Amino acid sequence: MTGASCVMCGKFGQSGGLHIADLAGSRVFLHEDQFFPGYVLLVLRRHATELYELSAPERRTLIEEVSRVAEALARVFRPVKMNYELLGNQVPHIHWHLVPRLSTDPEPNAPIWRVDHPPAPLAAPAARERIEAIRRALAISAPPPRA
Amino acid sequence: MTGASCVMCGKFGQSGGLHIADLAGSRVFLHEDQFFPGYVLLVLRRHATELYELSAPERRTLIEEVSRVAEALARVFRPVKMNYELLGNQVPHIHWHLVPRLSTDPEPNAPIWRVDHPPAPLAAPAARERIEAIRRALAISAPPPRA
Repeated sequence: MTGASCVMCGKFGQSGGLHIADLAGSRVFLHEDQFFPGYVLLVLRRHATELYELSAPERRTLIEEVSRVAEALARVFRPVKMNYELLGNQVPHIHWHLVPRLSTDPEPNAPIWRVDHPPAPLAAPAARERIEAIRRALAISAPPPRA
Repeated sequence: MTGASCVMCGKFGQSGGLHIADLAGSRVFLHEDQFFPGYVLLVLRRHATELYELSAPERRTLIEEVSRVAEALARVFRPVKMNYELLGNQVPHIHWHLVPRLSTDPEPNAPIWRVDHPPAPLAAPAARERIEAIRRALAISAPPPRA
């Protein structure tokens, strides 16, 4: 698969309503399903599918951004534990699932994939509020409004 | 939790039959359950629980080792996709689940946690053979036998 046919390149090439921040090597989005509050996707800007396809400087930038976003999420959501997952079984383009696991988690000892639940999208104002809280924690001002 | 009371510090402080390699910042072990062939655990040597507790040089070393082991696993097992997971919901000490997802995977699109299966430990000779194959791919000679 090349970048041209990659749904991740297409979907995340645009900023949408759930866009949080653009970092040097990645873009950060609130996950649509907020059953786990603060669940975020961090998507590599360029098309690659495995860590070992990246150069060492690219890996360093990526893990610094993963760590920085995780720390921001921890400041906002006060998780018992952060989960960091790079899977790509459905969409191989490198993207991280960053998931704060809170003290209110229904199954705190289980991976999120074992926690059956109905999807929990937020209404637009609540999503905006959550995104702003994460942006403040990242100390990133909101990107300028789109024309 | 401190290192003193951490089961991961205890368990992985020793080399056992499933030990693969010692790297600068981490230790590598074959997972007992080989239902997913080549499933490996990469355990941070020192006790820490979140990426953002590490220094930037520690993170760099860690992600280089994760990438190096993943590449070695890819050479041996030829996965369709590698999975990289840092969870810690049960044992928070930083450890990565590195899982080659092969073309023979029963549920290639699902996270491993959704694939119910009986545990599949290897008999000792088969485990040794798998460990040696990974060591060769890592170009690491076996550590000297323990006294």
